Amino acid sequence: MTNDGKRFHQHKGMGLVNYVFQEQHIKSLPGHMGIGHTRYSTAGSSELVNCQPFVVDTIHGHMAVGHNGELVNAKALRKKVLLQGTGLSTGSDSEVITQLLTATPPCGEPDGPNWTGRIYEMMQLTQLAYSLVIMTQDCIYAVRDPHGNRPLCIGRLMSLNESPQLSRLGGEIVENGEISDDDSTLGWIVSSESCGFHSFGASMCREVKPGEIVKLTTNGFKSMRIVSLENPEKPPSFCIFEYVYFARPDSMFEGQMVYSVRQRCGEQLAIEAPVEAELVSTVPESATPAALGYSLRTGIPYVEVLTKNRYVGRTFIQPSNRLRKLGVARKFGPLSMNFKGKRVVLVDDSIVRGNTMGPIIKLLKQAGAGEVGPKLNIVS
Amino acid sequence: MTNDGKRFHQHKGMGLVNYVFQEQHIKSLPGHMGIGHTRYSTAGSSELVNCQPFVVDTIHGHMAVGHNGELVNAKALRKKVLLQGTGLSTGSDSEVITQLLTATPPCGEPDGPNWTGRIYEMMQLTQLAYSLVIMTQDCIYAVRDPHGNRPLCIGRLMSLNESPQLSRLGGEIVENGEISDDDSTLGWIVSSESCGFHSFGASMCREVKPGEIVKLTTNGFKSMRIVSLENPEKPPSFCIFEYVYFARPDSMFEGQMVYSVRQRCGEQLAIEAPVEAELVSTVPESATPAALGYSLRTGIPYVEVLTKNRYVGRTFIQPSNRLRKLGVARKFGPLSMNFKGKRVVLVDDSIVRGNTMGPIIKLLKQAGAGEVGPKLNIVS
Amino acid sequence: MTNDGKRFHQHKGMGLVNYVFQEQHIKSLPGHMGIGHTRYSTAGSSELVNCQPFVVDTIHGHMAVGHNGELVNAKALRKKVLLQGTGLSTGSDSEVITQLLTATPPCGEPDGPNWTGRIYEMMQLTQLAYSLVIMTQDCIYAVRDPHGNRPLCIGRLMSLNESPQLSRLGGEIVENGEISDDDSTLGWIVSSESCGFHSFGASMCREVKPGEIVKLTTNGFKSMRIVSLENPEKPPSFCIFEYVYFARPDSMFEGQMVYSVRQRCGEQLAIEAPVEAELVSTVPESATPAALGYSLRTGIPYVEVLTKNRYVGRTFIQPSNRLRKLGVARKFGPLSMNFKGKRVVLVDDSIVRGNTMGPIIKLLKQAGAGEVGPKLNIVS
Amino acid sequence: MTNDGKRFHQHKGMGLVNYVFQEQHIKSLPGHMGIGHTRYSTAGSSELVNCQPFVVDTIHGHMAVGHNGELVNAKALRKKVLLQGTGLSTGSDSEVITQLLTATPPCGEPDGPNWTGRIYEMMQLTQLAYSLVIMTQDCIYAVRDPHGNRPLCIGRLMSLNESPQLSRLGGEIVENGEISDDDSTLGWIVSSESCGFHSFGASMCREVKPGEIVKLTTNGFKSMRIVSLENPEKPPSFCIFEYVYFARPDSMFEGQMVYSVRQRCGEQLAIEAPVEAELVSTVPESATPAALGYSLRTGIPYVEVLTKNRYVGRTFIQPSNRLRKLGVARKFGPLSMNFKGKRVVLVDDSIVRGNTMGPIIKLLKQAGAGEVGPKLNIVS
Repeated sequence: MTNDGKRFHQHKGMGLVNYVFQEQHIKSLPGHMGIGHTRYSTAGSSELVNCQPFVVDTIHGHMAVGHNGELVNAKALRKKVLLQGTGLSTGSDSEVITQLLTATPPCGEPDGPNWTGRIYEMMQLTQLAYSLVIMTQDCIYAVRDPHGNRPLCIGRLMSLNESPQLSRLGGEIVENGEISDDDSTLGWIVSSESCGFHSFGASMCREVKPGEIVKLTTNGFKSMRIVSLENPEKPPSFCIFEYVYFARPDSMFEGQMVYSVRQRCGEQLAIEAPVEAELVSTVPESATPAALGYSLRTGIPYVEVLTKNRYVGRTFIQPSNRLRKLGVARKFGPLSMNFKGKRVVLVDDSIVRGNTMGPIIKLLKQAGAGEVGPKLNIVS
Repeated sequence: MTNDGKRFHQHKGMGLVNYVFQEQHIKSLPGHMGIGHTRYSTAGSSELVNCQPFVVDTIHGHMAVGHNGELVNAKALRKKVLLQGTGLSTGSDSEVITQLLTATPPCGEPDGPNWTGRIYEMMQLTQLAYSLVIMTQDCIYAVRDPHGNRPLCIGRLMSLNESPQLSRLGGEIVENGEISDDDSTLGWIVSSESCGFHSFGASMCREVKPGEIVKLTTNGFKSMRIVSLENPEKPPSFCIFEYVYFARPDSMFEGQMVYSVRQRCGEQLAIEAPVEAELVSTVPESATPAALGYSLRTGIPYVEVLTKNRYVGRTFIQPSNRLRKLGVARKFGPLSMNFKGKRVVLVDDSIVRGNTMGPIIKLLKQAGAGEVGPKLNIVS
Repeated sequence: MTNDGKRFHQHKGMGLVNYVFQEQHIKSLPGHMGIGHTRYSTAGSSELVNCQPFVVDTIHGHMAVGHNGELVNAKALRKKVLLQGTGLSTGSDSEVITQLLTATPPCGEPDGPNWTGRIYEMMQLTQLAYSLVIMTQDCIYAVRDPHGNRPLCIGRLMSLNESPQLSRLGGEIVENGEISDDDSTLGWIVSSESCGFHSFGASMCREVKPGEIVKLTTNGFKSMRIVSLENPEKPPSFCIFEYVYFARPDSMFEGQMVYSVRQRCGEQLAIEAPVEAELVSTVPESATPAALGYSLRTGIPYVEVLTKNRYVGRTFIQPSNRLRKLGVARKFGPLSMNFKGKRVVLVDDSIVRGNTMGPIIKLLKQAGAGEVGPKLNIVS
Repeated sequence: MTNDGKRFHQHKGMGLVNYVFQEQHIKSLPGHMGIGHTRYSTAGSSELVNCQPFVVDTIHGHMAVGHNGELVNAKALRKKVLLQGTGLSTGSDSEVITQLLTATPPCGEPDGPNWTGRIYEMMQLTQLAYSLVIMTQDCIYAVRDPHGNRPLCIGRLMSLNESPQLSRLGGEIVENGEISDDDSTLGWIVSSESCGFHSFGASMCREVKPGEIVKLTTNGFKSMRIVSLENPEKPPSFCIFEYVYFARPDSMFEGQMVYSVRQRCGEQLAIEAPVEAELVSTVPESATPAALGYSLRTGIPYVEVLTKNRYVGRTFIQPSNRLRKLGVARKFGPLSMNFKGKRVVLVDDSIVRGNTMGPIIKLLKQAGAGEVGPKLNIVS
């Protein structure tokens, strides 16, 4: 969704971003600012209505909201909106946020949109969990909840003529950013993860702070206000799953690379759960940093024991009884020659349901492993 | 959109009804009541959000609205909704109606949904033009604006075992309908046009009256209230285009068949604009009843002079300069042998833009007609 | 499929011509000559391989074949091709024709393609039924079987600056056509039906004669050879279904307009089967010329009694038991007011399966007709 | 494409196998034997005609051919087929093979299909490069060219009730296979790569030998004949790209695992091109076995320095100038913290065009690497 200063332009679709945003779609989105959103799509075309950003017309012009997170008090806030006489067209708590922002702020000034004030009022109503991008006629707001539960980063889009800039992955950390005629900054970007900056020529600038409201205009970005925690003694509660599961390994949070965190988990595991074995290996591929960490700490060689068939999970075919019996064998191929008769420490990072580790160990044993396990897991 | 008493089930799409509602879609719509809507779709997938029925969650449960018409005071009502603090997600005045119905009625009782009261209040705010079907958790409301501008009919769905019923096209006209165990009535239907009743075994019962609120439940239908015109001396103003353009010829409005009205227009034209000619003919195919009426009144034989290529209008190809020059010749084929050297009275009913009659007359003259015209038009 | 003198360019698809040939497809088909084909498509994407034109590479360059008709000795010819050691990829007799044309002519000259000779040899092998367009590197051949069973017409594409030309529907009938610099002829067209010429600014020139091989090049067209019937006493056997069912009413065959033939059928019916009645009517819409012919001959007024729902046949939904019971009532709407209590002569032209006439008469009687029938049919 | 003993059933499509073969397609393919084919698809729907298997009707019934490879004398064989009078509908040399098999074998017996004989004759005409599966009415033939250029393996489909079987990855190597009532063999499978066997419960049996014709029926498989090389002193010439690029690492060729071959390449590289460095790393992910081999031989620790964005290559959007400048940075993310200031040996396996290694090294240097290279490549 883009904004050319006069109108909002929008394109939504179901499927991978590459599929939804083809060349003709990009061309149909003019403007000098824009926001976007991806989510795990569920089946059924009727679900398109749940696609974000949510965009509404308000008495102060159009506004669009992209939301990452889940509100802890979603039910109460939903009731509040319905009691105001506003009908909600989806079950999404992101729509609730959008309508809360639309309603005139109770203690705001009557004239003018005063979006910072509205956002501030909305943040009084709910403390957890949201990172938001909010586009109005004039600017974009980047907002992070007071707990800092979900990540939100600011990046600097640079002229590619000045290649030395590219090397500074971290860039300078600035409180407020500017765009002036004489420097190499082309614009500012806000994203949940910093890994994306790199791939279109931007560098990480800083994270939006817990509770912070940042305003981005054509002139740069500015910190407007910080909402502190109701209980100021509570520590920031950054979502642990970003480190161990969600985020891409080359993303940076709180000054550290996700990959490094995962590797240190593996090292710690080696300290807490040492095992005698000939090999350390990974369930590809998110557990690889942890397995390499385990290997580094113990000195046991790192060897690959499984290949992953990337297409299995995407099949449209209901597995037959026969295929169901095969289970993980459909997804992972054993590299038998690599581990025949050897004792293997197998590191995995998926404790979510915990129902694949057993079958994988059985698969490796059938394929010739001497001993596998004990069942280790980096977040156990 | 259907309602099984607990949940609403919805399917929407772009394209012809036959294409959008295929077998699997129908099967995914359980329930004992339902509403639907068709509109001229405009290009672009993003327009799907404008598809009706609009459905919202309210403090009194889900509600869905299908709207035929255009509000004369749409702009003012839109502003009213926005000032209440409700963000609107489309530019449609049907969404405005939906949110007006959602907001608690100003002078309503505080407890209970009282939908009839809400609808009544909404009707105080706008008198023109709408026919509505409104589905709530328990029932469906059929509403027609006080001017009766758009049509709305009630039909009776009958058991097909009692074929004599089928013959009574008009059925009995009843004020309120019931469904009891011992009769042949399977349910009640509301539709803009009565022509559709016939094709699934229903018969016309009566029209919803101007300003009337009718409630349909599993027990039957009941007239709840009638909102009278602000200015009671104004006559009902049924949209003339329904008779001359929109409606299917086998529909019934105000006790008369649309086809008959069109034929009488042709007869009247013969009285007001008599012409000496050897043939009367039609621009196929909506003008045929009028042409037959003209022939009937004057005794001049009715002869077909044009065939219509039904596919031309639907082409996806930008016409080249050459094809543009050909104009109506792409759409109509002259049956030259039928009118060579003859004087032709050609009756058309499309005064909307009035830019095809000239070229059609030229086409017929080139193809051999002795004299065509004068340019006659049933609503001139 | 087009030919730019060097390469063939092709686009095929399933669906209506308007859908398959969108603007980008037309643009991807450069060249100064081309052939195309439409057929009733059957369900299933795998059927795309059956789409014509069939195009093959031969020892004398590419060749493409479009075929209208069915070979009476298809089975024997298929066996002949298979025995030559050629594998056939479809069950179509059009592919058999294509491979027969590819095989070197048994008594032909050894050097050079000599396509006229090959076509002549192929025509010795089968006398019925085919109209063909055959495109080679240099030219297009238009071929009609010796019986003249299927139609094939030659049209002249004219400059639109000379509008008087447009009026001459028949144009001059010429044996061989030329394109010279000083006249208004832009090219020559071959088509099964002449009705299409009109809609892109061409005029009918003449029919390809039974057994004739016509060659079209950039210089014009030329009659190359005529294959006479094995039994020369047999009369030409033009397919009667073209007149009564397949062709568009504004097409011309053997000097007469299809519409006029149908109307004369109705007149003849009036002579052979006179009935006392108040109204003559049609089962819309192909039977209308016959009904008007019946009315013309008997003086009984022509009145419309049925509207046709054009969308019913195209539904993707399996009709439920209830809808099956309704039968023709789903497709035709009775205009009851037009015939209540009257005796109706109803003319239909579909004797193909003959199973709709009975239900339609029942439908009209239920809707109030005094007497309908006797069951009349123009080809009975 | 399947065969139920009476008819062939076929489904083809463009796209990933998972997309083309959805559940309804699988259900529409009954039978007790079948063959399939995948190829890199090129853009444009008209290319569907090139999809294999090629299926033709012959004088001895239907035959379908799947072909992996490219004929060295394709041009001469194509001319041979065209001179026989057979038109070819594609430019594919797989269609040429199909028509060569169709033509009656020159020195074959006149009666009966004798497919083994036909295949043998065809193999006399071309020695390189093809692996074929050929399905006839009764059986499937698996054929490998006399040079053994492309791989072809036979696998045994086992009952899943006997889990001990699953562990024997290699199974027993048998010359001819049988299916009897009292054992656990459900059927036999032929595939280019053995990696697929594992994932639906089959085990590798043996490779089809260079020049061998193997016949598979419902009773088992049987070696029919072996065509020896024209020049018997030439060694078998297995395609080296299968080991270093095409094949999945868990596939087995000539008794060795592809992964192991790649790892040994890395070890050999360490011997031939030793470098002083702090880290060995990979360009993910096909070069990983070689990098681990290099690390194993030299003792230099293996560390990951790049993440791969799996979606970049699949975008439908033409890269803008800006994105083009970014080049490999769009596809690979540097894990800077892992290698800042360190000297890195980077192992890659893609010498195909050789134009990505330079930019990747530049990318790593900009991201902080002390020294990268020299540019090493496992097949250099």
